[in-house]
Amino acid sequence: MKELVAGIDIGGTGTKFGLTDREGNVLSSSQISSTSQESFEEYLEELHAGLESCLAELNATNNGYKIVGIGVGAPNGNYYKGTIDDAPNLRWRGVLTFVEAFKQYYDVPIILTNDANAAALGEMLFGGAKGLKDFVVITLGTGLGSGFVVNGELLYGYDGFAGEVGHTIVDVNGRECGCGRQGCLETYVSAPGLVRTVQELLGRSVAKSALRKVSFEDMTSALIAQKAQVGDAIALRAFDYTAEILGLKLADLVAHTSPETIFLFGGLANAGDILFDPVRHYTEKFMLNLYKDRVKILPSAIGEQNAAILGAAALIWHDLKNIESKHQNLSIC
Amino acid sequence: MKELVAGIDIGGTGTKFGLTDREGNVLSSSQISSTSQESFEEYLEELHAGLESCLAELNATNNGYKIVGIGVGAPNGNYYKGTIDDAPNLRWRGVLTFVEAFKQYYDVPIILTNDANAAALGEMLFGGAKGLKDFVVITLGTGLGSGFVVNGELLYGYDGFAGEVGHTIVDVNGRECGCGRQGCLETYVSAPGLVRTVQELLGRSVAKSALRKVSFEDMTSALIAQKAQVGDAIALRAFDYTAEILGLKLADLVAHTSPETIFLFGGLANAGDILFDPVRHYTEKFMLNLYKDRVKILPSAIGEQNAAILGAAALIWHDLKNIESKHQNLSIC
Repeated sequence: MKELVAGIDIGGTGTKFGLTDREGNVLSSSQISSTSQESFEEYLEELHAGLESCLAELNATNNGYKIVGIGVGAPNGNYYKGTIDDAPNLRWRGVLTFVEAFKQYYDVPIILTNDANAAALGEMLFGGAKGLKDFVVITLGTGLGSGFVVNGELLYGYDGFAGEVGHTIVDVNGRECGCGRQGCLETYVSAPGLVRTVQELLGRSVAKSALRKVSFEDMTSALIAQKAQVGDAIALRAFDYTAEILGLKLADLVAHTSPETIFLFGGLANAGDILFDPVRHYTEKFMLNLYKDRVKILPSAIGEQNAAILGAAALIWHDLKNIESKHQNLSIC
Repeated sequence: MKELVAGIDIGGTGTKFGLTDREGNVLSSSQISSTSQESFEEYLEELHAGLESCLAELNATNNGYKIVGIGVGAPNGNYYKGTIDDAPNLRWRGVLTFVEAFKQYYDVPIILTNDANAAALGEMLFGGAKGLKDFVVITLGTGLGSGFVVNGELLYGYDGFAGEVGHTIVDVNGRECGCGRQGCLETYVSAPGLVRTVQELLGRSVAKSALRKVSFEDMTSALIAQKAQVGDAIALRAFDYTAEILGLKLADLVAHTSPETIFLFGGLANAGDILFDPVRHYTEKFMLNLYKDRVKILPSAIGEQNAAILGAAALIWHDLKNIESKHQNLSIC
């Protein structure tokens, strides 16, 4: 039998899933809506059916595949309890007992954590963090997520919720955040944060900009990146401001956990040098001397298309590796 | 033979050291100056002689003690290399190869790390953090130090320098810091930070205060605490301001590593409720909902007198425990 691990990435609008092998190939994948079902149970049923279709598709041509574990990345994923706790952008409220409920379909290990933690493990097993023991992955999308790897293992903390860098505070009187507070990092550094920055700059500055023709609702981080590439003054200033704030908070992050590398991942990170150059500049500027010139800031080395599925699957592959290395140690003694 | 571990705490003016047993008793202790010797080598020689005196004293009454390991807490202590790297408040500049040099006197394990890391391990083995796996110790003295324990182990990070919370930035245009930057947390939250806050408040406010009679140089955090206890308006405001800034940065810290408990230790923490009550209030206020009412903020449970020696010695006792539990596991298999 060829062993496969299912990776499931639960997002607010859609859920991606796929079957992966130990080398980090996604052999089959698909997705379902995260909003069209009447109940969470119905959603799980549809997800199960989808996974079974993927498996059947593979076994149709080459029989002998089986699922040996399921990894799940979810917003507000609680690793210790296997639950999704009050995720603001999911349709279903309260505490969703995902792992317990999904056990009705599969008698294999199921591990659930937040999506940024999954991205960090994916980076370690299949991306740019191979061999690294201390690094951080920052995901820059509709929010700012973070996953810390410390001494070769994900950092969960006491209650499983470590790594909420997006909700560290830049300015207590700053921008309103969806979490109910003000001035959280992700209100500045994320795709919507960049759009908000452009709006403020359009008001504050008299510089000419192609972005003056675009409404708030039509504006996207991709459009702003595109305008920055061709020298639009407002777009460039917006990236510089975003990088300055991110650099300041990355310097704090380094003072907490002293990582070797910080990987930036997700929509906003696709802007490339326009983001990375100033982020590197400001992080160095704000870092304590002890750390200067020691911390690398790099783009993720996992292709975005399969990153979420591979990250989720990595939760299981990483545990399997640990178990195998322990067995080896035991047989030596 | 009764096994002892030496604990050494290297400070800018004095070096404390002592011999400890496995239960956390300091059986013999002493100290030497950190400034009176002509060279670092001479300092090490004096330190060695001091330790030998402690040992001889014990063996005079009850022969059979031996030193099985040496733990060292030092400013800018580099755990991986066993060196003290450019500590600004030590007499000797550059990189001091402490562990390598001290091996000439003792053929036992010698572990060196920064003093706040040592304090955290001391809290875990002998203080209020027994049985905890995720906690932080913040030392509030002439600076602000921090030691993180994550999943039961000290967090060193890539280069051994994790835990510099005192140099996270509160305000990029804020107070000048000894590290050459501006607005570091320890310029606000530390014994000298509190004195600086009082100075600023004396200028800004017209409130009556006994502190108006005291010069900057004569003012101490202990005096300010004493005046706060009797209701001095400026002293109380200074504690509130200090707590607000500490609470803000502790909320960030929680968002990074999600500890179960944060211990406050050192001179400023001795102020008691006058500090702890507002620190708890502001930390809760600034924390993300996910963490509210979950993180305890407590005073250290190690008596200050022996804390530094016990913390340093804990570096070795903790490793010995780990080695013994591994041996037990191996003999089971």
